[in-house]
Amino acid sequence: MVLPATAESPSSAQVIDQLGDVCRDRGLPDLATRLTSLQDWIQSELNDFEAELETVPRGARVVQQAAHHLLNLGGKYLRPMCVALASKVGTGFDEASRQLALAVELVHTATLLHDDVVDIGDTRRGVPTARVMYGNAASIFAGDWLLVEALRRVRRAGVPTLLDRMLSIIDEMILAESLQLESRGRLRHDRGEYFRVVEGKTAALFRWALYAGARSGGLDEVQCTALEEYGLHLGVAFQLVDDLLDFAGDSRLTGKELFTDLREGKATYPLLLAMERDPELRPIIERAIGDGGAGASLPKTIARAIVNSLERTEALADSRALALERVRRAVSCLDVIADGAGKDALITVAEATVYREK
Amino acid sequence: MVLPATAESPSSAQVIDQLGDVCRDRGLPDLATRLTSLQDWIQSELNDFEAELETVPRGARVVQQAAHHLLNLGGKYLRPMCVALASKVGTGFDEASRQLALAVELVHTATLLHDDVVDIGDTRRGVPTARVMYGNAASIFAGDWLLVEALRRVRRAGVPTLLDRMLSIIDEMILAESLQLESRGRLRHDRGEYFRVVEGKTAALFRWALYAGARSGGLDEVQCTALEEYGLHLGVAFQLVDDLLDFAGDSRLTGKELFTDLREGKATYPLLLAMERDPELRPIIERAIGDGGAGASLPKTIARAIVNSLERTEALADSRALALERVRRAVSCLDVIADGAGKDALITVAEATVYREK
Repeated sequence: MVLPATAESPSSAQVIDQLGDVCRDRGLPDLATRLTSLQDWIQSELNDFEAELETVPRGARVVQQAAHHLLNLGGKYLRPMCVALASKVGTGFDEASRQLALAVELVHTATLLHDDVVDIGDTRRGVPTARVMYGNAASIFAGDWLLVEALRRVRRAGVPTLLDRMLSIIDEMILAESLQLESRGRLRHDRGEYFRVVEGKTAALFRWALYAGARSGGLDEVQCTALEEYGLHLGVAFQLVDDLLDFAGDSRLTGKELFTDLREGKATYPLLLAMERDPELRPIIERAIGDGGAGASLPKTIARAIVNSLERTEALADSRALALERVRRAVSCLDVIADGAGKDALITVAEATVYREK
Repeated sequence: MVLPATAESPSSAQVIDQLGDVCRDRGLPDLATRLTSLQDWIQSELNDFEAELETVPRGARVVQQAAHHLLNLGGKYLRPMCVALASKVGTGFDEASRQLALAVELVHTATLLHDDVVDIGDTRRGVPTARVMYGNAASIFAGDWLLVEALRRVRRAGVPTLLDRMLSIIDEMILAESLQLESRGRLRHDRGEYFRVVEGKTAALFRWALYAGARSGGLDEVQCTALEEYGLHLGVAFQLVDDLLDFAGDSRLTGKELFTDLREGKATYPLLLAMERDPELRPIIERAIGDGGAGASLPKTIARAIVNSLERTEALADSRALALERVRRAVSCLDVIADGAGKDALITVAEATVYREK
């Protein structure tokens, strides 16, 4: 099923707006107010980032069209925002930081282009994937192309050690993708393995974003490393919320159908918890993965049985609690950062992550 | 059809040996003798390169296994040999040059891993492809992984400008792959477009190999640029011979069946020439591509009709003549290089390229 395209690309400003609305709806007016301050504080940098995004070469090649198809859909721009926030804790979001912010978004986009081929994904951000529009081959080469463009931007930034660190991070990401691939469909791995996948697949790039922003902002090594660790916890919390949205999200907001991870045989934290606690769940899950696979929708009776088990075992509530715990750990990493608007913004981003609905 | 695996990995030494035999069989005893000298001159460096190849991390991940599956099959190692030869024209094949030689082979291998997914290729170097053994996803991620490893080696070499140049070269390679993808199955593009694809897809990496070796060997910019241009012509000649082998090769040597490029809808130079000269060939070719595609074998009557046309129009002979002309241009680039064993070796490599049978 192809979900309706949104009228225009969601910019990061809209994402923060919507997050503020969610916080107000949930009786968190203080967090909503802090999100408004965050937005005021970071808006000009995000505009600069979006202008930089326009400098990614366009051209007649199908590979470039496939890459821009996904880039044009916008995104949450959370990783570039992390670069910008960390740089503003220091000397500010300068030309080098802009290149680093673009690089992290391009690496992220490159992995999505390859993931969609690997997952045979049809929908991303509410519209058909690049591989549906332009073919698997174009999507693979488009990912390669954006990766190269990203590395050139890191070079252009010219901040020592960041290119080597980015290459190490991409290495971590690939090995984590590999681990996920090996466990795929089995759902037999334990929590330890789950966190190894999440730390590599998702949190590693957040770590780089925070470290890179801090380094280009001229922070000292202790502060850079502290922000990197903040990125680790933020990334894990982000992924835990992503996992939750697979069971409890609104597909009009997330741009993907419910149970997509499940049908693709990917382990998510709520599911691992629920299967530990409810022995009757595993055969239901195995049937759900076996039936038709990723392409087919889940029969309603099976979907209901899974959601019932997730609620009965309190797996959803405990997953959300763990996300909150990782947010607390992220915030505690900021002890070495001087009080001020930058630190406040990083706290707000971490706390709001748990409430995101897209 | 899976071709029989060779008893052991073909090392570059064996490749030069076999090439010497071919030259003797063709009544070129002088070239055969020069190949023996080349081998003596470069053997220790090739051994060092093969030892460096062993330092590519092994590990339990399926992505690493997929990458090593292809690396273990060996290869002609022509690109690393180009790095070694160029460096030996200068101060020699040192630690930095070794890293550069490894990098160029890893980039080449990464593109093969992605190409096999794109081409739905079943056989490579005479055995099943990594994507057949480990799946498309593992082959895609293995390509990504080797690309990152390659770039880390270029970093490790620490020779100025070479990383930026490598990123530009990979960009060229991807855009050429894209152009080939767009023209695929149509076989309507002209010779100009054919050369744009070949220069990007094949010759660009040869250019880098020669330039990188020359730079790490401490040659001046005029010499580096001359060797880069030698690499361009060598690369085009190499691809022209590859094209010829699609029609006239021995699958036991090439490791792939005849007419593979044709069945994949890829334009090759002999075919473009023959279609210009024989209006009756196009409908036959279009039928050959339409019938079953890359997976199926070509019916014998069609194969015979194509080979007849290639011979009648002298397309094969003229393609070989063009390869020889590009070799001549490669050799003429060496005018700025001082006479000596290094220059002799580069001349030998270029001249022998035309006679390769694998």
